Amino acid sequence: MIRAGIDIGGTNIKAGLVEDQTGAILAQSAVGFPSGRNESAVWDTLYHLMDRLLDSCGMDFSQVPSLGVAVPGSIDSSGERVLHAYNLDFSGTPIKEALTQKFPGVPILILNDANAATLAEHSFGALRGIDTGVLITLGTGVGGGLILGGKLFNGGNGNGVEIGHMTLNYDGKAHHCGNRGCVETYCCAGALTEHGSSWKNAEEVFRAFQSKDPIALASLDAYVEALSSAIVSITNMLDPQVIALGGGISNAGAILIDPIIDRVAEKSFFKKRYSIVQAALGGSAGFVGAAVAHSHVLQNT
Amino acid sequence: MIRAGIDIGGTNIKAGLVEDQTGAILAQSAVGFPSGRNESAVWDTLYHLMDRLLDSCGMDFSQVPSLGVAVPGSIDSSGERVLHAYNLDFSGTPIKEALTQKFPGVPILILNDANAATLAEHSFGALRGIDTGVLITLGTGVGGGLILGGKLFNGGNGNGVEIGHMTLNYDGKAHHCGNRGCVETYCCAGALTEHGSSWKNAEEVFRAFQSKDPIALASLDAYVEALSSAIVSITNMLDPQVIALGGGISNAGAILIDPIIDRVAEKSFFKKRYSIVQAALGGSAGFVGAAVAHSHVLQNT
Repeated sequence: MIRAGIDIGGTNIKAGLVEDQTGAILAQSAVGFPSGRNESAVWDTLYHLMDRLLDSCGMDFSQVPSLGVAVPGSIDSSGERVLHAYNLDFSGTPIKEALTQKFPGVPILILNDANAATLAEHSFGALRGIDTGVLITLGTGVGGGLILGGKLFNGGNGNGVEIGHMTLNYDGKAHHCGNRGCVETYCCAGALTEHGSSWKNAEEVFRAFQSKDPIALASLDAYVEALSSAIVSITNMLDPQVIALGGGISNAGAILIDPIIDRVAEKSFFKKRYSIVQAALGGSAGFVGAAVAHSHVLQNT
Repeated sequence: MIRAGIDIGGTNIKAGLVEDQTGAILAQSAVGFPSGRNESAVWDTLYHLMDRLLDSCGMDFSQVPSLGVAVPGSIDSSGERVLHAYNLDFSGTPIKEALTQKFPGVPILILNDANAATLAEHSFGALRGIDTGVLITLGTGVGGGLILGGKLFNGGNGNGVEIGHMTLNYDGKAHHCGNRGCVETYCCAGALTEHGSSWKNAEEVFRAFQSKDPIALASLDAYVEALSSAIVSITNMLDPQVIALGGGISNAGAILIDPIIDRVAEKSFFKKRYSIVQAALGGSAGFVGAAVAHSHVLQNT
């Protein structure tokens, strides 16, 4: 069955039409997150993006059995409201009601973006068939999702998990989430680019690293030191079989993954029990997971 | 049914006879961990402790349907071997074989001490009936156990969980587990006593705190800062319903729990979704959980 998925990011909004048994992507498109952080501009943007996407396939909204929408933040357990999405400036936003008005007749499901990506990786990617696994998404922010007992774990109270806000240095910088020294502070794209005067994104740091730029070498080393400790915190707690790294930064591939594997092995209590791999679905994971979430939620109940 | 449980600690070894449906303790006893860290002296100590305990109840080994033994370390997934128990200097120790020889005819079950305490709290104590819960044991070392989906979670690979070796300061002191700045480093009894010249244990620090000793006030504040961040790391990841604090340090009660509740509320991503409580079974949790583990393992299969 062809389902629709949208992944709202602080920089870009991506959408796709996805076959829910195979994960095959029929069509996809992306636009920038509207400036001004105005909620109604966001709903308009989602509508036009999806409208154009359907149009490009000769389809219309009546042919869409469901729309899943992934949001970079925590969702209330009923799936109605965004509790917090710091990178979008959303707080207490009644997203399901707004989108139900915007997409009349289309069943809407709201989920956390990292949960969506985790579902996608567990269904079709790096966590396929895994009983205990973790996806860590490394981008503008840091998120993650857990597979426990072969199923997506949505937190003990149904509000998702916040791997990016685990403590990495309890004496570190205060974050607006309330904690100090969050994983996100040291493992987001900004942590990688902040040491160079001209780097706009992680890709430029990795390029400079390949040219043996000394600041890039030091930046990546500091990043690997932080991220490996974050991974060790999770492996020591849950002893998962697979840790998949996703998000834009993971596109660096072996340049990032190889030193992470070495550093985690040095620090981890449980040696060589896990594999650390690049997530398989890249930038599509969010909308693929959002699209297939309807069938998965049904499967799990 | 009356079952036997032993809890091996780096300081004391405790044993008890426990009714497995109610958790009622028929008899209990304790001895010091034998000096010299000699394995065979440990097995002898366990035997004599249990022999005396049975004798005090007019029982003998033929009347014991099972013996559970809790160890402060990680156990291989078959339950045969202690992989590491740093506080006992055990590494790769074939404990099940040794104890099967020592207690012929008695079915032996080996488990991690924090898992044992978690089982006991989930069966009869602070985590009773909880779907997602955490026990953190605060003593010579720091351990913990997880209840996920209403059952004891024994790690993705069946080797337990190592909450004490989660990262609390990735730039912190190296620990012999391989990680830096482990939760255990900042939340063990030694972290509380190290600032006073004469404090032998956490109890003395809490006594000095009540007399408003300035070093004790500062020590407890630093301890609360560290422990609250460790708890936040767990609450942000799993969003549990209950976090129970056990181990010797938790005997301080409200002096410790009250400031922890306040500090966790300030730092936690998920506000007021959990309760933080003192574990209910005190120093008995380890041997009670070890004793009833046989019936629970059977229940879960």
